[in-house]
Amino acid sequence: MSYKLPELGLNPSSTSAGTNPGSFAKAGKIAPGTEGRWTFASPDTPGMPEPSDKTAWDFLPAGWTTEELQTGEVVSASGQVVFRQADDSLRSVSFPADFEPITQLESARVGIITAEMERVAERETHLSPAQVRDEVAAGRMVIPANKVHLQHQLDPMCIGRASKTKVNANMGASPVSSGTDEEIEKLKWAEKWGADTVMDLSTGGDIDGCRKALIENSNVPIGTVPIYSMIIGRKLYDLNMEIILESLQHQAAQGVDYFTIHAGVLHEHLQYVKERLIGIVSRGGSLLAKWMIDHDDENPMYTGWEQICDVMREYDVTFSIGDGLRPGGLADATDQAQLAELCTLGELTERAWRKGVQVMVEGPGHVPLDQIEYNMKLQRTICHGAPFYVLGPLVTDIFPGYDHITSCIGATSAGYHGASMLCYVTPKEHLGLPKKDDVKQGCVAYKIAAHSADVALGIPGTRDQDDELTKARAALNWEKHFELSFDPDIARAYHDEDLDVDTDFCAMCGHDWCSVRISKEIVQFASGKEDDYKWDKAKVSDALTEEQKEILEKRGVLSPEEVHKLASKTKKAVGAEENKASCHSDYVDGETAKEIHKNVEVVELETK
Amino acid sequence: MSYKLPELGLNPSSTSAGTNPGSFAKAGKIAPGTEGRWTFASPDTPGMPEPSDKTAWDFLPAGWTTEELQTGEVVSASGQVVFRQADDSLRSVSFPADFEPITQLESARVGIITAEMERVAERETHLSPAQVRDEVAAGRMVIPANKVHLQHQLDPMCIGRASKTKVNANMGASPVSSGTDEEIEKLKWAEKWGADTVMDLSTGGDIDGCRKALIENSNVPIGTVPIYSMIIGRKLYDLNMEIILESLQHQAAQGVDYFTIHAGVLHEHLQYVKERLIGIVSRGGSLLAKWMIDHDDENPMYTGWEQICDVMREYDVTFSIGDGLRPGGLADATDQAQLAELCTLGELTERAWRKGVQVMVEGPGHVPLDQIEYNMKLQRTICHGAPFYVLGPLVTDIFPGYDHITSCIGATSAGYHGASMLCYVTPKEHLGLPKKDDVKQGCVAYKIAAHSADVALGIPGTRDQDDELTKARAALNWEKHFELSFDPDIARAYHDEDLDVDTDFCAMCGHDWCSVRISKEIVQFASGKEDDYKWDKAKVSDALTEEQKEILEKRGVLSPEEVHKLASKTKKAVGAEENKASCHSDYVDGETAKEIHKNVEVVELETK
Repeated sequence: MSYKLPELGLNPSSTSAGTNPGSFAKAGKIAPGTEGRWTFASPDTPGMPEPSDKTAWDFLPAGWTTEELQTGEVVSASGQVVFRQADDSLRSVSFPADFEPITQLESARVGIITAEMERVAERETHLSPAQVRDEVAAGRMVIPANKVHLQHQLDPMCIGRASKTKVNANMGASPVSSGTDEEIEKLKWAEKWGADTVMDLSTGGDIDGCRKALIENSNVPIGTVPIYSMIIGRKLYDLNMEIILESLQHQAAQGVDYFTIHAGVLHEHLQYVKERLIGIVSRGGSLLAKWMIDHDDENPMYTGWEQICDVMREYDVTFSIGDGLRPGGLADATDQAQLAELCTLGELTERAWRKGVQVMVEGPGHVPLDQIEYNMKLQRTICHGAPFYVLGPLVTDIFPGYDHITSCIGATSAGYHGASMLCYVTPKEHLGLPKKDDVKQGCVAYKIAAHSADVALGIPGTRDQDDELTKARAALNWEKHFELSFDPDIARAYHDEDLDVDTDFCAMCGHDWCSVRISKEIVQFASGKEDDYKWDKAKVSDALTEEQKEILEKRGVLSPEEVHKLASKTKKAVGAEENKASCHSDYVDGETAKEIHKNVEVVELETK
Repeated sequence: MSYKLPELGLNPSSTSAGTNPGSFAKAGKIAPGTEGRWTFASPDTPGMPEPSDKTAWDFLPAGWTTEELQTGEVVSASGQVVFRQADDSLRSVSFPADFEPITQLESARVGIITAEMERVAERETHLSPAQVRDEVAAGRMVIPANKVHLQHQLDPMCIGRASKTKVNANMGASPVSSGTDEEIEKLKWAEKWGADTVMDLSTGGDIDGCRKALIENSNVPIGTVPIYSMIIGRKLYDLNMEIILESLQHQAAQGVDYFTIHAGVLHEHLQYVKERLIGIVSRGGSLLAKWMIDHDDENPMYTGWEQICDVMREYDVTFSIGDGLRPGGLADATDQAQLAELCTLGELTERAWRKGVQVMVEGPGHVPLDQIEYNMKLQRTICHGAPFYVLGPLVTDIFPGYDHITSCIGATSAGYHGASMLCYVTPKEHLGLPKKDDVKQGCVAYKIAAHSADVALGIPGTRDQDDELTKARAALNWEKHFELSFDPDIARAYHDEDLDVDTDFCAMCGHDWCSVRISKEIVQFASGKEDDYKWDKAKVSDALTEEQKEILEKRGVLSPEEVHKLASKTKKAVGAEENKASCHSDYVDGETAKEIHKNVEVVELETK
């Protein structure tokens, strides 16, 4: 008498953004015509703007031309190349005979696969070096790699929707913090917790020395907001083009990989800010707005854009065009001020491409969940696919103290709908300065967002770890379960808090109620029977490590004595195997395991 | 030279689910034809199943008929009513002359607005009592209110997509916990942190006494999973219809408001479980699967469904039809096993409605973000709009220790795409038993999800608090900012950790860099000038409360001495106003405020 499943297709198919089967691909349900594709996008809800029909190829410098050829030969000559693109088509490019490529974009345009592109393709296992080059040439991908930083420890990486979603962590010295050593420690901490780039937002202390040290010690790209240094020790009113260029030149020469520059806030936009609930929340944006009002003049970053490009090109510094008018509250989201600036960001993207400079674009902020897809796809249209680097967005304003959570919800959606990099938010947002643990909490929340977006988009390989962990979990192999976890220490500590034996149940349900154990025991199910995860006997877990001990001490659930006991276990101290032939074994049988844990909060069920 | 905004409409318009302007409505952009509507839905991505054209009105008991009339009079007679629905249409219903309504559904069907519906309409400020009644009659809303619990402290509430998204918190005693008093403490804690219902998942201790005490002390509906009590002290194999009905009768008579019953796992579904990575993760589901394999017989909950309905009807206990085959890992999501069970849940929904019993349906689990919309809308089709009560879903498997976050991301999306209630997940998921703080973390993460879904859907009034807080924030009125926050203690503690003065900047940026202060000072902007939030002078904050002190002690950022200092401030102890006429004032001028905080980590910028 069972109900018949209606004739239903599995999930949306074609969209104006092209076909993407998303995570369904893993199940073998590849939508027709999508094999071998390397762009990833969510299907469009009706009403989304159409993607642009232009790319960076449409914004070449004066004196350049390009066309895609149906037939022809590969050519490499002075002032002309014809090269084979990753999809096997031929592209011809003509340029001034004396041209020498400097930036990754310029190299890509003349068909060169740089060492950095090779390295990026190693790290993005689903992309070939030629695909990387083509994405960079199209302007859909950037490789932020200042020539100077490359001489230190930078490990080249990319930002772009064809690649995995990236995470940025912010840090920065203040006038009274201990400065450089502390910042390097925070850098290493953020790298450990998965940050793909780091921004140095210092406004005090030994700013220059600190920036230099961060660049020299960093494996990840370093971004800055140069307007800070331009103003420290000066009056805002005195800011002019000379100061701007000098400051950018200095930081570029140090090795900064990308600059946030708020050139998109124009004088004519300020009228749209009037009725906003919370005006301008960007530091750079508010300072430039003030400058424009005081001078009654246009934003100098906007008018001097080409001069700025020249400085950046010399070192291959990437633009991160700032969103000075991003909304600081749900009420201001997707309003005229924000969208007007976005149009200017589109114009600035085109102008930067004409100068051969790599570009990514920054985005909001605070946006209700239902407006996120539209925000992402509007940027994709207006900026012709240039990577979108978004802050959050927060999907509600009323949970200060928890804004790493309110914003990682929006960030996951943003990544799924098109953003390429997510700027983290910590629990201290809106309230004060992030501390070391806040940096970690922000990083973890954003790795969750980035990874979940990758899985949703169906980026090949990204769900492998989830599936392996699920198999380990199904097999009740706790060691492998934790090994495969993003934060093995917290997983192990939380588990051992209730039960320090690895066996075929945990404290959540106890032996008799464990559905995973039951599933494993049902002969007909494959669940839990994966060869790689088989184990033999229940085992007392190792003594807690220092990190795990700290975690439990901080949680305050167990008493200090109980934590100490877990942290100082030795094989002898366990004494669980008094009656077995081999003394002092870590292994326990099922009965002993149950006996051991009777003293902790475990659900027991008598089914005999 | 500014770029022109392309001709773009603001967000998607009509969909097969009807028009819903979502959060854009707040901006005054109401889509035509939607005035007065009280259903909320996200626009459909192409490929979504069409909503059902049936409702609970299509599944009346034998001997009942109904029709909607174009013209006529209101009638109330034996065996017939004609009543005016909320949309002004007339509905005629005929039924056996001796019929007496018991459940909310039955009352609604004969046009009655019960006291509980009135109370629900008070709490759902955008709904009228008639709208509530009509949603209940259509089966799209339930009011879980056992007649016995109504005699205690239950404050009637509803679950259904026309109303605000609800949150459930799980708790439950084990064989060795202290039992009843501790569970009541957890209940009150969960209520404080916003749980709309609570499930008692006890499997040990004084189960019966504990359940009774919870019901007697609870303002919120209490749900249970009765199969637990059916099996404790027995062999699973011995489970039969008599035991099942006796157990349900007992719990219904105690006052339980809703039962999770895994009647949807059928013998023929088990073949689909074979290749799953993690089999069956539902306790009830795995036990019934085992029972069916051992007996080689059909699920007795399924075959005995009508007898179960009779028991529930007597007290108006609501069904929460269990998802025994929900996926326990991304790899198993939206698979044949899950969808086959969903079809059965649709059938069971229809059968329950034919018995006059209220129904909600349970859902997954672990689902990649891109599959969530489809999961929600498939259930909407198959279950004819019955409320969907989902667990998470988690959008990635690899972050144990953080599963309140991995799952609240999915839960927000689920609510936006159609789910009516979200079952929380705590940081201890997959690892052990949740402790008091884990309960709080789960509740907060899920209030974030529920509230953000409400805002995204454009449910009237739900964004008011966000906007008020934004205004307070823009005005730099910290007291009001924290008052309007969901967790004022954590917001205040995090702020004061760096700066214990309420003034026109905070420690994040310091005075000169504060964009919010700059926005407030720009005369042309409305930002920060709201009358209700004006303040006069900077003010030293009050001494930390006990809760705030605990928060900072636990964080471990400040030394115990520093925390103690903040917690023991008195007006005299501050000494900030030595030179002012009124001694011992809490108020400080701007200069003094800056002076005070020079000793904490605050960014200072010399712009003079």
